[in-house]
Amino acid sequence: MSTDPTGPALRTLRLTLAYDGAAYQGWQRQPGRPTVQAAVEEAVRAVTGARRAVHASGRTDSGVHALAQVAHLRTECRLAAETLIRALNANLPGDIVVRRIEDAPPGFHARHHARRKTYFYQFHVAPERHPFWRRFALHLRAMPDVDAMRQAAAILQGRHDFRSFVTNGRDQEDAVRTLYALRVQRTRSGLRVFATADGFLQHMVRALAGLIMRVGTGRESLGGVADILAARDRCAAPASLPPHGLFLWKVEY
Amino acid sequence: MSTDPTGPALRTLRLTLAYDGAAYQGWQRQPGRPTVQAAVEEAVRAVTGARRAVHASGRTDSGVHALAQVAHLRTECRLAAETLIRALNANLPGDIVVRRIEDAPPGFHARHHARRKTYFYQFHVAPERHPFWRRFALHLRAMPDVDAMRQAAAILQGRHDFRSFVTNGRDQEDAVRTLYALRVQRTRSGLRVFATADGFLQHMVRALAGLIMRVGTGRESLGGVADILAARDRCAAPASLPPHGLFLWKVEY
Repeated sequence: MSTDPTGPALRTLRLTLAYDGAAYQGWQRQPGRPTVQAAVEEAVRAVTGARRAVHASGRTDSGVHALAQVAHLRTECRLAAETLIRALNANLPGDIVVRRIEDAPPGFHARHHARRKTYFYQFHVAPERHPFWRRFALHLRAMPDVDAMRQAAAILQGRHDFRSFVTNGRDQEDAVRTLYALRVQRTRSGLRVFATADGFLQHMVRALAGLIMRVGTGRESLGGVADILAARDRCAAPASLPPHGLFLWKVEY
Repeated sequence: MSTDPTGPALRTLRLTLAYDGAAYQGWQRQPGRPTVQAAVEEAVRAVTGARRAVHASGRTDSGVHALAQVAHLRTECRLAAETLIRALNANLPGDIVVRRIEDAPPGFHARHHARRKTYFYQFHVAPERHPFWRRFALHLRAMPDVDAMRQAAAILQGRHDFRSFVTNGRDQEDAVRTLYALRVQRTRSGLRVFATADGFLQHMVRALAGLIMRVGTGRESLGGVADILAARDRCAAPASLPPHGLFLWKVEY
């Protein structure tokens, strides 16, 4: 028996989650709307009997997917990790899954302690669209100029004020981030644009991917990319790409 | 101007189609229910202005997918194939796409002239289910014994009365088919069972795949497989697998 008057000590768990974001208004709980956080917290309540917050490394936007979102949970539950994974997945809808659970140090915080995150934006490149890609990639009829895209990406990499790539950014907000890498990778079915940074502003990956895609299709010049970055003005940049091609791929601590 | 009193000569087109079958009651038109055939014929009507039947190589069942279903269409329409593909796809829902159109000999019939068809049944093998596979594969927690599955497949290959693997088979119906190949292939994410035959009976691939999967998981013996085939009785065989793992992959003429 614990003598701590606040009750038994809480265990800190680190969860790795994958989800198809199509049916959700993003990660973060919002009253009366389906969100990934609400679904996960509801499964935790069903399995452990206690209502506990599950905090993720960051909110993914409405319709955005995750292959390895990381979240933490503090719970009295003493179930072994494998048992808990099985039980949570039995209580989660088919479009959300817990892939791993590990015990974490007591103070572990999925958002505060995240050092780097990597997203990728996926393009399906083919003369005609394909039914099996439509939920998970943006369709392009022809292969863009990948070399030009890589040159544009090189301009954007590094530590910059990314205000031109934020939606709903408040003027006073710090928009300086370090974009460690912005890579364009060919895949069997098209392209992926990987972005790794110490943090991302809202819609930043979709705005960056949209801009370098415009360079690859000849609608924007390399000089234009530098100008847009320097402008620090959202109105200078092209529209963000739609959410269904975006995946949170990796969170590093 | 044509002097043929029946109107201008019809052109015969061979269409190759892909579809995600989840939202459809199979290929074949049925009053008041969504079917792939109805959607394709409606797109043809929208583009050409004429109501024409589109006949496929065979009906796929409710919920079954196709990567390369073949169909024929006789039409007055003189549009170039590339233009017609673009126009049809602009009028089709996102879960159906026309991948190719070729001119075919006047008498070409997609069903009567099909020599061999190949389906595959897809298994996702992982300790936990995954959101991105749930619509396109059956989830298995552990890898079955692939060698045992291949031995079971070898028993089933060849020319046999497949009555044990038919749903709704009428007693008088000829159930003899030649199963040219039944192959088990490992993939990065699990397994595929490929079945090639001169024709398939209703639910036959799903019943065959279900049986050899049971051998792979130790719930059926090789002797049992031979007995079930010899019984010529649907009640002898295990239940068919669900439709969402099944794909029509290839039709040969």
